[in-house]
Amino acid sequence: MPNPTAAMLVIGDEILSGRTRDANMYYLAGELTKHGVDLKEVRVVSDDAPAIVAAVRALSQSFDHVFTSGGIGPTHDDITADCIAEAFGVSIDVREDARAILAEHYARTGAELNEARLRMARIPEGADLIDNPVSRAPGFTLRNVHVMAGVPAVFQAMVATVLATLTGGQPLLSQTLRIDRGEGEIAATLTALAEKYDDLSVGCYPFQQNGAYGANVVIRGTEGGRIDAAITELARELSL
Amino acid sequence: MPNPTAAMLVIGDEILSGRTRDANMYYLAGELTKHGVDLKEVRVVSDDAPAIVAAVRALSQSFDHVFTSGGIGPTHDDITADCIAEAFGVSIDVREDARAILAEHYARTGAELNEARLRMARIPEGADLIDNPVSRAPGFTLRNVHVMAGVPAVFQAMVATVLATLTGGQPLLSQTLRIDRGEGEIAATLTALAEKYDDLSVGCYPFQQNGAYGANVVIRGTEGGRIDAAITELARELSL
Repeated sequence: MPNPTAAMLVIGDEILSGRTRDANMYYLAGELTKHGVDLKEVRVVSDDAPAIVAAVRALSQSFDHVFTSGGIGPTHDDITADCIAEAFGVSIDVREDARAILAEHYARTGAELNEARLRMARIPEGADLIDNPVSRAPGFTLRNVHVMAGVPAVFQAMVATVLATLTGGQPLLSQTLRIDRGEGEIAATLTALAEKYDDLSVGCYPFQQNGAYGANVVIRGTEGGRIDAAITELARELSL
Repeated sequence: MPNPTAAMLVIGDEILSGRTRDANMYYLAGELTKHGVDLKEVRVVSDDAPAIVAAVRALSQSFDHVFTSGGIGPTHDDITADCIAEAFGVSIDVREDARAILAEHYARTGAELNEARLRMARIPEGADLIDNPVSRAPGFTLRNVHVMAGVPAVFQAMVATVLATLTGGQPLLSQTLRIDRGEGEIAATLTALAEKYDDLSVGCYPFQQNGAYGANVVIRGTEGGRIDAAITELARELSL
């Protein structure tokens, strides 16, 4: 059975303006690979309702899971929850269980659960909450869309919660062979290898180091024995 | 006149598998902001022809410029040029000026211009070459799509070449005010500020430091005087 597929939607002007370097994409990509879920596409859009709604609809129709990052805080530019509700045509309002989590948290910390903070208890109808062990304000899952915070520590905690509930496929294994020759020297050999081992993925990632060209060849698949065989054959073909 | 808009398309399984952390998105976002071009969307797709073709078509129709990164090397998984040709319904073949650049380069370095390397001279009909001062193999611009290498040093050099040819809008200016209070404390003030200064963008980016909550408020716009006024007003409202 093929692995489940996933897409990620990063919401935030701060990434697109170059102010912030996104950390969540790299983290999620690694976690999904470990869990046997194939990340197929990432989109980054701005804090703009039509852009978010269109991306949620497109990605949730095309992939088994969609993971979103950003836009669920208390300020005016946090519009993700409303956009998810709009994308699926459901209502959204402050929900009692989410409000209770926030009320308990702010009572303990001595801060006020004001109108702005109460925005974080707005949850689309039919969604399940995602626990936030870091700062309490929950994420949520609606249909196949998992809505999480953009702050990396919170995002990572929520990803762990969601992944524990998913049935993944077979984890993707990989081996890398570093080859100190230009890509162009080895391309024909790689093409032949990729054709012969068509159950594996053969990637070639060139680099320059101290003025010399080289490439990392990464062979990925779900069967360790096949990857071993392909790597051994590649090394033999290139007389390494 | 509004700034020109742009999208970025990152092509590469190595990003989606979590093997490589993308560096080009962050770089391009910063350069476009400096040049007054508004980056509106980024997509990351795998080395898969239908996914690349669909993304090129969608983004080139929606935005003034599209910048792509990755997939223009000599190996079998480098399919970007062919996908760009397919997206626009034009032919693609080895082009003499591109072949000459490679021939001169490999003659000088003593390497062979073999069949694999010659793939890098395949250029869609009607495209203009983008100079590659680092490793010579050119990128190209077809219509509003700028096709560049994924290796960061080459990508950055090509971005510089392309941006020199574009007429940008007004550079986006920004000022940041660090506020050592939780987002929820300041949200109402920010909402009012964003409504009053509707020619500016008011963003709020929370952080946690040594267990305390804070937020960076970033005000962006093209008129420095307006940003100054908004920042001053914000500081006064919050009694900073």
